[in-house]
Amino acid sequence: MNLTRNEALTYVEPHLKRSRYEHTVRVVEQAVDLAKKYDVDVKLVEIAAALHDYAKYKPLEEMERWIKTDRRLPKDLLDYHHELWHGPVGALMLEKELGISDAAVISAITCHTTGKKHMSTLDKVVFLADYIEPGRDFPGVDEVRELANKNLDDACRLALKNTILFLVEKGRTVYPDTFHAYNDFI
Amino acid sequence: MNLTRNEALTYVEPHLKRSRYEHTVRVVEQAVDLAKKYDVDVKLVEIAAALHDYAKYKPLEEMERWIKTDRRLPKDLLDYHHELWHGPVGALMLEKELGISDAAVISAITCHTTGKKHMSTLDKVVFLADYIEPGRDFPGVDEVRELANKNLDDACRLALKNTILFLVEKGRTVYPDTFHAYNDFI
Repeated sequence: MNLTRNEALTYVEPHLKRSRYEHTVRVVEQAVDLAKKYDVDVKLVEIAAALHDYAKYKPLEEMERWIKTDRRLPKDLLDYHHELWHGPVGALMLEKELGISDAAVISAITCHTTGKKHMSTLDKVVFLADYIEPGRDFPGVDEVRELANKNLDDACRLALKNTILFLVEKGRTVYPDTFHAYNDFI
Repeated sequence: MNLTRNEALTYVEPHLKRSRYEHTVRVVEQAVDLAKKYDVDVKLVEIAAALHDYAKYKPLEEMERWIKTDRRLPKDLLDYHHELWHGPVGALMLEKELGISDAAVISAITCHTTGKKHMSTLDKVVFLADYIEPGRDFPGVDEVRELANKNLDDACRLALKNTILFLVEKGRTVYPDTFHAYNDFI
């Protein structure tokens, strides 16, 4: 991967709102901290974290078209909230536009919102950094932050548990990969 | 289906503890009430309800052997709590031992604990009767009972929601069919 952290950030910046770009910079910093702590390739983590929200503001119709036409994207995404689309669709767009070919980076971008079964350490680091970066402020986030200092899996498990409880209490659907990730960590 | 309700109850009685047999009789009565209300074949509901817990006290090793060797049983059951095994294993045993061949009855017995995607009305009636029969007393059951008088799907949705919240709050795994059923009702 020849792309640098700054090149990746420069690439995504025009595609994001200002506040989302600032979130992205914090996710990169948080992810690098976690990567050093849990011994993951820092360069890959930087790229995945910098690019993770690339498709966040793509038009829904464009994302829907990608999901319908690209055989690598699971069709059942269309049955769930469009908030979940930007990870998998973004990963695919970045593969085509930027030539991102590292499977580990593609995976981390793809599953950063939902989690999935058998997450790699890189997947976990990006997923968790997105959840706990210092700008996040929602019930339970501090407990996940503390756990993230001690045990990566415990922190991911709690983040997934909180997410599922939040969604089910609200009577919202839960994407199957989130359940699979949760069960996997239990 | 030539089996009568009493024949089915007589068949399962020696396989159950006394308290579980009494639960079974109440599930039959509750299921028949729901069947009449929601226009489901009462005879099929009686049989499915009478037989639903047939394998409840089978030795774990025996159920494990069934799961491992019969191609119709999903292998991932072994990764989840053995409490979930008696439905699918019981259905299969009844098919072989009693010659129960009605697919609707087999389905209702199979999914009575976990639910599943695309439940039939018969599936829902047995699932719900097992959840709300008058001997049941746990937080939230009265609300499900009330809903069961008004709308079968609303009642099933709430029962599944309660089950998922209970399990996730306890940090226990949730069998994928339960999530699929929940998402399906949302």
